Amino acid sequence: MGEFDLIERYFRRPARRAALGVGDDCALLQAAPGTQLAISCDMLVQGRHFLSTVDPRKLGHKALAVNLSDLAACGARPLAFTLALALPSADDAWLAPFSQGLFELADAHDCELIGGDTTQGPLNICITVFGEVPAPDGRSQALLRSGARPGDDLYVSGTLGDARLALEVFRGTVSLPAHIFEAARRRMEQPTPRVALGLALRGVATAAIDVSDGLLGDLGHLLRLSGVGASVNADAAAGLVAARAPSGQGNRLPGAEFELAQWRDWALAGGDDYELLFTAPPTARARIDHAARSSQTPVTCIGRIEPQRGLRLLDNENRELPNTYTSFDHFA
Amino acid sequence: MGEFDLIERYFRRPARRAALGVGDDCALLQAAPGTQLAISCDMLVQGRHFLSTVDPRKLGHKALAVNLSDLAACGARPLAFTLALALPSADDAWLAPFSQGLFELADAHDCELIGGDTTQGPLNICITVFGEVPAPDGRSQALLRSGARPGDDLYVSGTLGDARLALEVFRGTVSLPAHIFEAARRRMEQPTPRVALGLALRGVATAAIDVSDGLLGDLGHLLRLSGVGASVNADAAAGLVAARAPSGQGNRLPGAEFELAQWRDWALAGGDDYELLFTAPPTARARIDHAARSSQTPVTCIGRIEPQRGLRLLDNENRELPNTYTSFDHFA
Repeated sequence: MGEFDLIERYFRRPARRAALGVGDDCALLQAAPGTQLAISCDMLVQGRHFLSTVDPRKLGHKALAVNLSDLAACGARPLAFTLALALPSADDAWLAPFSQGLFELADAHDCELIGGDTTQGPLNICITVFGEVPAPDGRSQALLRSGARPGDDLYVSGTLGDARLALEVFRGTVSLPAHIFEAARRRMEQPTPRVALGLALRGVATAAIDVSDGLLGDLGHLLRLSGVGASVNADAAAGLVAARAPSGQGNRLPGAEFELAQWRDWALAGGDDYELLFTAPPTARARIDHAARSSQTPVTCIGRIEPQRGLRLLDNENRELPNTYTSFDHFA
Repeated sequence: MGEFDLIERYFRRPARRAALGVGDDCALLQAAPGTQLAISCDMLVQGRHFLSTVDPRKLGHKALAVNLSDLAACGARPLAFTLALALPSADDAWLAPFSQGLFELADAHDCELIGGDTTQGPLNICITVFGEVPAPDGRSQALLRSGARPGDDLYVSGTLGDARLALEVFRGTVSLPAHIFEAARRRMEQPTPRVALGLALRGVATAAIDVSDGLLGDLGHLLRLSGVGASVNADAAAGLVAARAPSGQGNRLPGAEFELAQWRDWALAGGDDYELLFTAPPTARARIDHAARSSQTPVTCIGRIEPQRGLRLLDNENRELPNTYTSFDHFA
């Protein structure tokens, strides 16, 4: 199978929303009047972002999901994406499930593939995604990292640390009951981009970022760009992970070999969560509640924005905890 | 140096044309009313698209140039690009010249970096480029591959085969006088995207494509999408390469070890040329001439579009030549 057969067989579909899709030198996209295009780009490398043993269908899902998560964090509605793919060989047994997983998620978000590139090389998946944000008279409604204000509540969607938990099982540092491992593994391999929540937060949240490198690291970006600090209840955050523990088991899961304290580490600095971290004033609590319900996305208040810079980690008794966490850095 | 230092040090610049540039979850781009966005994406892999010994500054140039060439082939004006980079390590001695070469070409085309991704991995450079095409009332002025009509002249810009010539020197199959090798090497390592010519051809050319996989292969795409055939003077095409030979030397360059016939192969199927191949009716000859002069880009008529499908290769005496060429295919 040659390069052009590969594209025809797995990646060519008729353009629906784009003025011109796959097959020419460029794709053509016409933005609706009064909108801005939100653009993001993520590259996934084998051994770094996924294991060589991953099911290609799940990988197709994840490669697009991590990009849609960036659109979600801007409150953008997905429109289209390009896919550049370096593959060791043109292998049907890989390409068929990969493209299936990719298009299943793309179709669920009405986000169409409009172009890309394929080449021979070490497995590398690079997706650039395009979304639409209203910008009447040029005033963008995009959610930015820079809008948090002192007094705002700090929220996170879903749960944190599960992807890291699954990774630790693969690394052999942790063993888990099968049903908990499967749930954690789904979070690692098939993250859910919080697109509907991002859209519902437009005009409500003051700032947002997606949590991909770990809660505290990504919170650090939001605080720095907003010029503020925050206090975070570390137990509330860890509780998002611990929610999977059967009630009444205390700090120990039957069949698991680690303590809640370790879960807290993963919740705060685990990485690969693809949840939304966002802020809103206390007066918006009812609207946040409505956004969570209308998007069917659980949301938890984990802290508060403060005027003095820096991050204060507190426990349930409001005692300050040492913050010795570092977020994921590809070159650290 | 960590991931975020790397971005700050080498790739962060203030946004000029974008509503929001590097540093948030997404970049924001506002298309001008009555325009379409042209989008293209090319991935460059070490050993496939460039040699490990290449000067990083030239590589920065080439990575963007091959993308701008796609915009040129659509007649799009460059606006912005995203850069995703997998690097074995965060190495100043590579990043400084790479980013310098990249931004030199970007600045020459007023094309700004608006976002991207960096990660650890085998060297891989993926650029997605954005250009603007007028589309008054939704009627796009983009140059497409599908517009060639029987009777149209077939043109190519610049010269063909030089990049392949340099590659053959690196492969050790050819030796060349130093000054010719240096000229060929510049063509391989620092191709010139024909952006100004592409803009000048809007409303004049009926179809266009950029020649990246070899003239005959890319011509094949144009013919297929236009539903037509063509006759091409193989000597006229080969002559574009031979133009570098001192006059009066016949088929043999002093110091070179190959015949003109071999040059013809490289001109027709060499790859990595990044020239524009385009069509226009004979009535447009004066306007093609003007487009070439106004963009300071040499242009040569190499054939004609014919109603019957297929490609006829002719020599200077109008005798049909066998077409046994294959274009570059990353998975063949």
